[in-house]
Amino acid sequence: MTAAALPALVNGATRLYAIIGHPIAQVGSPAEMSARFRASGRNALMVPLDVEPSEFERTVAALKAIRNFDGFSVTIPFKARMLPFVDRVLPMAARVGAVNAMRRDGDGRWTGDMFDGRGLVRSLTAAGHRLRGCRALLIGTGGAGSAVAVALADAGAASIGLYDIDSEKAAALAQRIARHYPDCKAVAAEPDPAGADLVINATPIGMAPGDGMPVPLGRLDPKTLAVDVILKPEPTPFLRHAAACGCRTADGRAMFEGQLDEVIAFFAGNG
Amino acid sequence: MTAAALPALVNGATRLYAIIGHPIAQVGSPAEMSARFRASGRNALMVPLDVEPSEFERTVAALKAIRNFDGFSVTIPFKARMLPFVDRVLPMAARVGAVNAMRRDGDGRWTGDMFDGRGLVRSLTAAGHRLRGCRALLIGTGGAGSAVAVALADAGAASIGLYDIDSEKAAALAQRIARHYPDCKAVAAEPDPAGADLVINATPIGMAPGDGMPVPLGRLDPKTLAVDVILKPEPTPFLRHAAACGCRTADGRAMFEGQLDEVIAFFAGNG
Repeated sequence: MTAAALPALVNGATRLYAIIGHPIAQVGSPAEMSARFRASGRNALMVPLDVEPSEFERTVAALKAIRNFDGFSVTIPFKARMLPFVDRVLPMAARVGAVNAMRRDGDGRWTGDMFDGRGLVRSLTAAGHRLRGCRALLIGTGGAGSAVAVALADAGAASIGLYDIDSEKAAALAQRIARHYPDCKAVAAEPDPAGADLVINATPIGMAPGDGMPVPLGRLDPKTLAVDVILKPEPTPFLRHAAACGCRTADGRAMFEGQLDEVIAFFAGNG
Repeated sequence: MTAAALPALVNGATRLYAIIGHPIAQVGSPAEMSARFRASGRNALMVPLDVEPSEFERTVAALKAIRNFDGFSVTIPFKARMLPFVDRVLPMAARVGAVNAMRRDGDGRWTGDMFDGRGLVRSLTAAGHRLRGCRALLIGTGGAGSAVAVALADAGAASIGLYDIDSEKAAALAQRIARHYPDCKAVAAEPDPAGADLVINATPIGMAPGDGMPVPLGRLDPKTLAVDVILKPEPTPFLRHAAACGCRTADGRAMFEGQLDEVIAFFAGNG
């Protein structure tokens, strides 16, 4: 279909993608991905779907059977829970243990991959930050946090301290990284930013009205780069604190924008 | 949200409606309804969902639990199967035994109604056709056919011959009409157009490539008005035949366009 034949908004022949999360109103993917589908001449939209956590599994099973859904993006809190719904798990997603994008292939099977960590690494590198040899502190080891940790190790980070309110989750991620990236010193750690070049909030804490810091961090060294994976509010409580300490900051747009081209290519069947 | 603040296509805060059917590419509701939501300043879209008949019940159960779906339109072949998913069945839908629109109300319960028959009656009346006292032959007594039969009886039709390949279905509809509209002579009948002022195809036959007439009808009296509920192809095999016989015709746009305003008001919580 050529661009000239695209409907004003949507029609009966529109192919659908959805981003599945809870909450959902904050996500940027519907606007960005839909604009990109359209710019490439495709009659396709990405719509937001606000799925109750208690309903997740039966909802995904049903959505996969709807014939005009061609792919899904996955956001908080479902990235790890989506893994069992993917038939072919690509290597980065397997290493992370979570997916944030999946597509229906020509044979009807679903391929999934994880782009969050690579997206963040791409954006930080493009902004001139050197990740090879860096020492990172990561707060939160869920889907997004695991993706960021694996991508940092993949980019040559010297060490990653992993903090999670669930210390077993942090320890399990540390072991997984040690197995795949023996040169990166990944350890479950207290949330102490001393000596870290990079501190990353990969928890959802900060999104909800009234949220404060993900953990008390005290004063940050102004040489520290502070990164949040949350898109809204701008700035997040963590980045407001970091800016007040004189740190450079990168908000959730870094992770989000760094992966858009790659996710579009993935949905098109490449990668 | 004011019209000026609407996203170009869709964003994370977009409220969703869906039209559920199989097949789906032919439906006009996504374009028409989405344009009307937008014209009224709402950040809302209606998307098409192509649901396999074998997956219908579990899909609807899951869709109803997605928080940013506010309503559904229902098309072939699901109008009767949707009825059990509605908490409050409005009188026309109860009489027809099928719904073609349902909305989530403020209390979380779902209200459903049937607009097909009223939509067709409104369009035909607006085009100057007199339905009071008419004799109709209806081919197909599924969801749309039942809606058309009840609305014709409601509009004062003198008689309705009901033909369906499943003769028990036609007989059951005849009884239901006789109960609610004792002045209308509704009978299960052979598909004989002799003496009919109005012949209506309410089957999906004609939509699929290679489809012909819904039933052999022979030559039609040029005074007969021929109506099809199918939107595509234009013309349908039935209407092509009717036009060749010199009949006036009305295609699926009559039923569709005659109900748009009323369905929009229903989705807004009125009616």
